[in-house]
Amino acid sequence: MSPVFTVSDYLNARRAQVDEGLLRYLPTPPQCPAPVYDAMRYSLVAGGKRLRPVLVLAAAETVGIESPERARELALPAACAIEFIHTYSLIHDDLPSMDDDSLRRGQPTNHMVYGEGMAILAGDGLLTEAFSLLAREPQDPLLAERKLKTIQQVATAAGAMGMVGGQALDLDAVGAAKTFDRHSLSDMHARKTGALIQAAAAAGALMAGADDEAVAAIETYGRHLGLAFQIIDDVLDVEGEAGRLGKTAGKDAKADKPTYPAIYGLDESKRMAAERMDRAVGALTGAGLEPGRLADIAAWVVRRTN
Amino acid sequence: MSPVFTVSDYLNARRAQVDEGLLRYLPTPPQCPAPVYDAMRYSLVAGGKRLRPVLVLAAAETVGIESPERARELALPAACAIEFIHTYSLIHDDLPSMDDDSLRRGQPTNHMVYGEGMAILAGDGLLTEAFSLLAREPQDPLLAERKLKTIQQVATAAGAMGMVGGQALDLDAVGAAKTFDRHSLSDMHARKTGALIQAAAAAGALMAGADDEAVAAIETYGRHLGLAFQIIDDVLDVEGEAGRLGKTAGKDAKADKPTYPAIYGLDESKRMAAERMDRAVGALTGAGLEPGRLADIAAWVVRRTN
Repeated sequence: MSPVFTVSDYLNARRAQVDEGLLRYLPTPPQCPAPVYDAMRYSLVAGGKRLRPVLVLAAAETVGIESPERARELALPAACAIEFIHTYSLIHDDLPSMDDDSLRRGQPTNHMVYGEGMAILAGDGLLTEAFSLLAREPQDPLLAERKLKTIQQVATAAGAMGMVGGQALDLDAVGAAKTFDRHSLSDMHARKTGALIQAAAAAGALMAGADDEAVAAIETYGRHLGLAFQIIDDVLDVEGEAGRLGKTAGKDAKADKPTYPAIYGLDESKRMAAERMDRAVGALTGAGLEPGRLADIAAWVVRRTN
Repeated sequence: MSPVFTVSDYLNARRAQVDEGLLRYLPTPPQCPAPVYDAMRYSLVAGGKRLRPVLVLAAAETVGIESPERARELALPAACAIEFIHTYSLIHDDLPSMDDDSLRRGQPTNHMVYGEGMAILAGDGLLTEAFSLLAREPQDPLLAERKLKTIQQVATAAGAMGMVGGQALDLDAVGAAKTFDRHSLSDMHARKTGALIQAAAAAGALMAGADDEAVAAIETYGRHLGLAFQIIDDVLDVEGEAGRLGKTAGKDAKADKPTYPAIYGLDESKRMAAERMDRAVGALTGAGLEPGRLADIAAWVVRRTN
């Protein structure tokens, strides 16, 4: 095999590793009943950027305790578990009682294909399997402490204080026709999107055996990256087209949802995203870490067009 | 304080301990946004038998490695985590796209009070917090291996191969107007109800430091107990009244759902439940364990009237 040189090659190689892991770690029939397996698998293989699992792997490589290959091997289960969780959150967010979306990644959403009840169960199943996987793999008693720290980090980020809480604030605001001020908007996004992105970075570092200082630096990187990601998401919702995004563009504005462009304007939003990218990378260099692939990922997040 | 003598005193004392733990371990505002906190708390304090968490504590006492007090202290976080999971499953099962129930434990179901979207999030939040709690408490590095084994046991029981899978089979059958044969019925129930009851018993034993043989015996006990519980649930659905059950009686028959009484008749169903109780207790004595409180719990499960 030829060595991996470009960012795009790197991302594709990591995505392939993640895609293989996702299907290998997903429980299959007959142990897993076919109706819920089909629904889980449908959304898992529907593509997507795989930002979070690739981030887990890149963070693992960055802390430099192990060889890049060994670091990725240690972190792959966590990478897949976090993508299980991300996928569950998309399935539940798309439900009629939440964002009511019929299209995701250019394909019918889970509940359009399998019905609402099965979509809820597919999400529940993916969320639960994520923790089963985090507790189980890699099977090495010496990794027990790392695994427990990772589970705590991921559960806190995904739970009622993090992602679920952010979605609840979003839902509550839409339902009550409330408007967010700047602080509430950033708090909602930090929970809804930022927390899991930050946890992905931290999980990679933790599983690869990073010390507390390196984990803290990578968490700071992840926090800025998460915010940059959300700002660009809002920008793309204004600028994008349904075909390119694979989802309905202009949907946030139509739903009267608060967005960065609505509050700050498009140009200022883009400037803010770029600033976050710089601060993300700065956190790494400040702690003596080689930004390498994590800097590439930050640049990709800010420059992406879908 | 006077010593606890009767079964009823014992159960009440353990329930009080669990109720206190549930509220102590639930994340609270402002870290947890109020809309989802309110919805999670509503269903958590709605009462219920607390069978699963009491079972966790009783199993911990039974393995006899530690004093009963210490065993319960080690197992309380797992007891509360499993009740979080049980509560989430009730919230999601009651949703319009699942069993469409408006009454639970004599009170309006979660989605009737908070809306469908928030009810889904409350369930998601409780499920995720359960794993956060299992990974975090008790905070003792020496318990790392026990905690990881417990997380695996609980996640497998609650996930797509267990409870979520059972609910998917149930939903799939209703949707397609399929009928279960005896084997499929027992498989569906074993997943939907039995798996988490079995995991509750195993979790208590694991957290209290039981050896493999004791854990296996307690798992066998839990498997029979889970089946007995489901049979009696079906019997009560036929014999019960809405007021006493706190939910709509006769609902299963009306929905043309397969039940034990429908397949085996009432008398034979009751005999089957009693037989399971005997086999549950037999598994304990066969492994040299003192049945004590676990036998009391089995008798309570079979003789309960709600």
